[in-house]
Amino acid sequence: MILSGKPVAEHITAKASERIEELKAKGIMPKLAVIRVGARPDDLAYERGIIKRFEMAGCDYEVFEIPEDCTQEDLDRCIDARNADEKVSGILLFRPLPKHLSGNYVRDAIDSDKDIDAMGLFNQASLFAGISKAYAPCTAQAVMEILHYYNIDLTGKRAVVVGRSLVIGKPVSLMLIGENATVTVCHTKTKDLAGELKAADIIVASAGVAKMITSDMVSPGQVIIDVGMNTDENGNLCGDVDYEGVSGIVDSITPVPGGVGAVTTSVLLKNTVEGAFRINHDKL
Amino acid sequence: MILSGKPVAEHITAKASERIEELKAKGIMPKLAVIRVGARPDDLAYERGIIKRFEMAGCDYEVFEIPEDCTQEDLDRCIDARNADEKVSGILLFRPLPKHLSGNYVRDAIDSDKDIDAMGLFNQASLFAGISKAYAPCTAQAVMEILHYYNIDLTGKRAVVVGRSLVIGKPVSLMLIGENATVTVCHTKTKDLAGELKAADIIVASAGVAKMITSDMVSPGQVIIDVGMNTDENGNLCGDVDYEGVSGIVDSITPVPGGVGAVTTSVLLKNTVEGAFRINHDKL
Repeated sequence: MILSGKPVAEHITAKASERIEELKAKGIMPKLAVIRVGARPDDLAYERGIIKRFEMAGCDYEVFEIPEDCTQEDLDRCIDARNADEKVSGILLFRPLPKHLSGNYVRDAIDSDKDIDAMGLFNQASLFAGISKAYAPCTAQAVMEILHYYNIDLTGKRAVVVGRSLVIGKPVSLMLIGENATVTVCHTKTKDLAGELKAADIIVASAGVAKMITSDMVSPGQVIIDVGMNTDENGNLCGDVDYEGVSGIVDSITPVPGGVGAVTTSVLLKNTVEGAFRINHDKL
Repeated sequence: MILSGKPVAEHITAKASERIEELKAKGIMPKLAVIRVGARPDDLAYERGIIKRFEMAGCDYEVFEIPEDCTQEDLDRCIDARNADEKVSGILLFRPLPKHLSGNYVRDAIDSDKDIDAMGLFNQASLFAGISKAYAPCTAQAVMEILHYYNIDLTGKRAVVVGRSLVIGKPVSLMLIGENATVTVCHTKTKDLAGELKAADIIVASAGVAKMITSDMVSPGQVIIDVGMNTDENGNLCGDVDYEGVSGIVDSITPVPGGVGAVTTSVLLKNTVEGAFRINHDKL
């Protein structure tokens, strides 16, 4: 079974649209502020996906472009203005930032109610503490949305997460633990990755290495969520999993492209709408 | 090999004493403020251990007792006063609190530099993010101190943590991942706990169930850190591990009592001294 991201994204988008109507009836419109420093091609591609998604859902957005050679103060001022703007319900700052800017410094600058990609300490700690109102990083949340949409039972299942990053590996692991999976976190220092993977019920691949999970490392019956966004030897987009070799063995797998990546912008939308409920709770 | 907590605690205490001398030479004395609501026997026992440790190291401390029927405001005021007191470098609030008081409300009330048991979001998020200056909950840190003192190599080792609590299971898991172990988090919903445990190199038992890990669940060569503090059928203190049955099979194990519990107060001391460096950084 191919776990396509498209129906998941459509489902989340439809639900978000309903909530937008609910807000509009009370004179409120959610709005995403995208803050982009410079014009990296990756950021521009993500931005196009966001715009498409938000237009589809009828949700406001605005892109704030800051020159690549801006000062820390320019960036801080841009974030502060979006925090202060009552119309803005979600703020997304593209990263990585140019090297002369401090990511740590701005990390907690975003109002936690508008921090829809969980950059800040408040949302990260809430995630750690298992507080349900925490925003999770959008890609990590997209993994969970796919598992939920396809009714993949997690309780007591052995989930192996490959990668321990702050934006995917760690938050996904915590969310899987929160949903009663037995979770193993693997990484570059793991000795027998193939052994760990073979014994899994569910694999979340977020290593960032093209096609590193091959047919000899998986087992029948498994569910694989491939978070990888890599380029293969022919310059084509591919995941961390060797899809051709693996998809015939396992039970279900997300394609790349068209899997997790297709869901991320709908999570951004969902969280931007949620942000509007939070910052307007006195009016609702 | 018995992984006794005593030499670990003595080593940490000796190092803390050296740092206290360094501070004293500059006119600074670290001080722990223990805030106790009511007089629960568990709290009083822990308090006695803390006092003994701090007197041994020549470190200041003061216990602030608040009546069990105090208001939320009484508790808040007590915390605020300790935050404001420049002499206080560490604050420990015994929990659980009486039911009429909100733990969430006070959680972030403690200044993060003085939050030596990592109650607050700032330290929890820092732990999640792998920021080295984060304080960890003392018992979780004690587990790591024991592993370090006995030179137990963690890189690439399979560590199985039983329990997913905010004070032990989750922080220990994150710290083990940070030190390159391949970590599996097990809990009440784990299907084959015996199988998970048998395949481990290192087991951290923090389930809170007396003697639940038995001889048929372990393997030769393993290292076991038993965080359990339970009472057995004869009313004696015991761990999560059936020590008699298991200690003859595995390579190394912490006893209960005399293992992790013996190290906790020295971690409190270490962190209180660290707190003094932080709040006085302008004088050092």
